[in-house]
Amino acid sequence: MDADTKKMALRMIPYGIYVLTAKDSDGGIAAATVNWVTQTSFDPPLVAVGVKADSGAYAILKKSGHFALNFLGKGQQGQAFAFFKPTEAGDGTVNGEAYRDGSTGSPILQCAPACVEFALAEIVERGDHHIVIGEAVDAHAASPIEGRPDDAILHMRELGDNVFYGG
Amino acid sequence: MDADTKKMALRMIPYGIYVLTAKDSDGGIAAATVNWVTQTSFDPPLVAVGVKADSGAYAILKKSGHFALNFLGKGQQGQAFAFFKPTEAGDGTVNGEAYRDGSTGSPILQCAPACVEFALAEIVERGDHHIVIGEAVDAHAASPIEGRPDDAILHMRELGDNVFYGG
Repeated sequence: MDADTKKMALRMIPYGIYVLTAKDSDGGIAAATVNWVTQTSFDPPLVAVGVKADSGAYAILKKSGHFALNFLGKGQQGQAFAFFKPTEAGDGTVNGEAYRDGSTGSPILQCAPACVEFALAEIVERGDHHIVIGEAVDAHAASPIEGRPDDAILHMRELGDNVFYGG
Repeated sequence: MDADTKKMALRMIPYGIYVLTAKDSDGGIAAATVNWVTQTSFDPPLVAVGVKADSGAYAILKKSGHFALNFLGKGQQGQAFAFFKPTEAGDGTVNGEAYRDGSTGSPILQCAPACVEFALAEIVERGDHHIVIGEAVDAHAASPIEGRPDDAILHMRELGDNVFYGG
């Protein structure tokens, strides 16, 4: 396999930008920017998320049994970069962003135009990131979206001409 | 959970358009348009694909142990719709598109700007679509891509204002 061709082809996959959050039984909070996300079933509504296996977010979501995907919107590059950094939880804030607890206990960022909460269904422990499979159990939106929802999300390519995560 | 909010949020996930192909040991050919695709690991390079569990493509890729994702490019809406239809294999063609066998035996569409072949690693049998996990083992490109690869792929929203597959 030609490594450059493989990298170029895999980088053709378009991605949105999400902040994955979780809170474990000891109050440990995870909040990390992710992009490897796809739906995988309508009924039940399932998603698969690639999560770095040696990350704090992975440890906390595994312990918690629940997680949320906070969908970032247009212009929220600042929030995307904020959650590349280590998690710093304050008084009702995480990495400077206000949140509330969702019905699963997962932090719901006030700034996110939409958020879906998931029950952890299974983790496939393969690769440097593991495949986290979640079933949607609650959903929130700040307001209705005009036009196509997939135009309203922050896209990977809007983080910078040379920003990729994949390949 | 509010069903409309869940649907709107999940439809924020952006998707590219791919033709999933496979060939089984009896020469049975699968070729079906899919969009639920994400990378899930760098090392080894893994992807997860949601594939309808009662589809012919699913049966053939499971039997084959290999599959390919043919990445469609800008303007290839016709090819995307062609592979929504039942598979009709001809003499070196499938649904009217010329192909050759890749190193894994999976059909590589001549029209696709890029194609990655995968060894089937695991199938997670959950939901109305199952989660097909593949490890990239070969990659092909018709020619180098100018600019960002994720701008060169055909996007779901380019299939029509009201075309969605997800939610």
